[in-house]
Amino acid sequence: MHVVVNAAMSADGKLSSRRRDQIVISGDADFERVDQLRADSDAVVVGVGTVLADDPHLTVKDETLCRRRLEEGQSEHPARVVVDSTARTPTDAAVLDDAATTYVCVTDAAPVDSRMGIENHAELVTAGDDRVDLLRAFAALEARGLERLMVEGGGELIFSLFEAGLVDELQVFVGPTVIGGRDAPTLADGEGFVDEFPTLALESVRRLDDGALLRWTIGGR
Amino acid sequence: MHVVVNAAMSADGKLSSRRRDQIVISGDADFERVDQLRADSDAVVVGVGTVLADDPHLTVKDETLCRRRLEEGQSEHPARVVVDSTARTPTDAAVLDDAATTYVCVTDAAPVDSRMGIENHAELVTAGDDRVDLLRAFAALEARGLERLMVEGGGELIFSLFEAGLVDELQVFVGPTVIGGRDAPTLADGEGFVDEFPTLALESVRRLDDGALLRWTIGGR
Repeated sequence: MHVVVNAAMSADGKLSSRRRDQIVISGDADFERVDQLRADSDAVVVGVGTVLADDPHLTVKDETLCRRRLEEGQSEHPARVVVDSTARTPTDAAVLDDAATTYVCVTDAAPVDSRMGIENHAELVTAGDDRVDLLRAFAALEARGLERLMVEGGGELIFSLFEAGLVDELQVFVGPTVIGGRDAPTLADGEGFVDEFPTLALESVRRLDDGALLRWTIGGR
Repeated sequence: MHVVVNAAMSADGKLSSRRRDQIVISGDADFERVDQLRADSDAVVVGVGTVLADDPHLTVKDETLCRRRLEEGQSEHPARVVVDSTARTPTDAAVLDDAATTYVCVTDAAPVDSRMGIENHAELVTAGDDRVDLLRAFAALEARGLERLMVEGGGELIFSLFEAGLVDELQVFVGPTVIGGRDAPTLADGEGFVDEFPTLALESVRRLDDGALLRWTIGGR
């Protein structure tokens, strides 16, 4: 399994403002890059916070890319995965529509009613007591044939994935704005590391749109 | 007056861990770049949080650079400036030693005893009621001949400077590590912007040490 985390952050490392508003950080070239990355993936993964804040569809937008997937014997769109410990994904969320297969990873602590509501629209993956056990959940996804995973946020999920040692690659677009705010969501939130920090290797850095694209691979801790 | 903000942050935008420990993010080449930037400045500015957390000296480390400053009729080191609303700078702080002139910017709300203690080691600049009025404080510094200011953090001061429209340039070293943590200090903390965001222009981006150096100039909001 290969896990790529992709995100766009402001020059000061924020994914959005303290109000959790969606802020346009990148431009057309980055949008195309992200669409290509989705098309090259077996599944696109987000945390439930991102679903609740932005209600993304997570499908491939470029029809040529969709057609190519079909020609190669793949589904039109990659699968969608929501990491959602307590099954808070609304049943009318865009990720639960019919455009693609969706997996919702929940825990034993998720209310049965909520789980049953989601199960009408998605396949449930149950792993963990209170918080989704990401190692087990990702192993279950791999067992369903999902090898190339792309994670689109948010910062809580991204931190948890680094904590679990599940990230192989990090692609960050750094955009030409300052958002600021000690309570604004950042690329990696959660508890944070305090002594041993994941070490990255910079594979490439280049100008893109009005910002910079940094591609890191992940070594040990 | 020209104000450059310089900082090293992790790949996820953090200046240090949630414990406020000092973490080595950059390497030798970046260290030399920062030393050169200090030598090219009339003053190096930090917030009191940085003084309390790291007790930095803020002097130029390379003796050749110091000698060059002296040959050019400047002081051996640039002046040091601490933005310290309530005069919390300890009288034994490294920035209050005799190596360079130091200015401590305080407010009318700062306890008289603390102000008097600091005044034995530094020149006080009083501006503002509860929080340092940065426009007035920086004008007072300019009146003392300080034209080229370099700001080295922390995130609270950097945000306040963006808020006051005082930043001309932002130089950020992005290092090869992930720190994470929703409570870890970021490049720009404070309240954060929610609707109008400062717009930056990317002047250059290049690989440096094991990370990337991004140089931004600041446009309007």
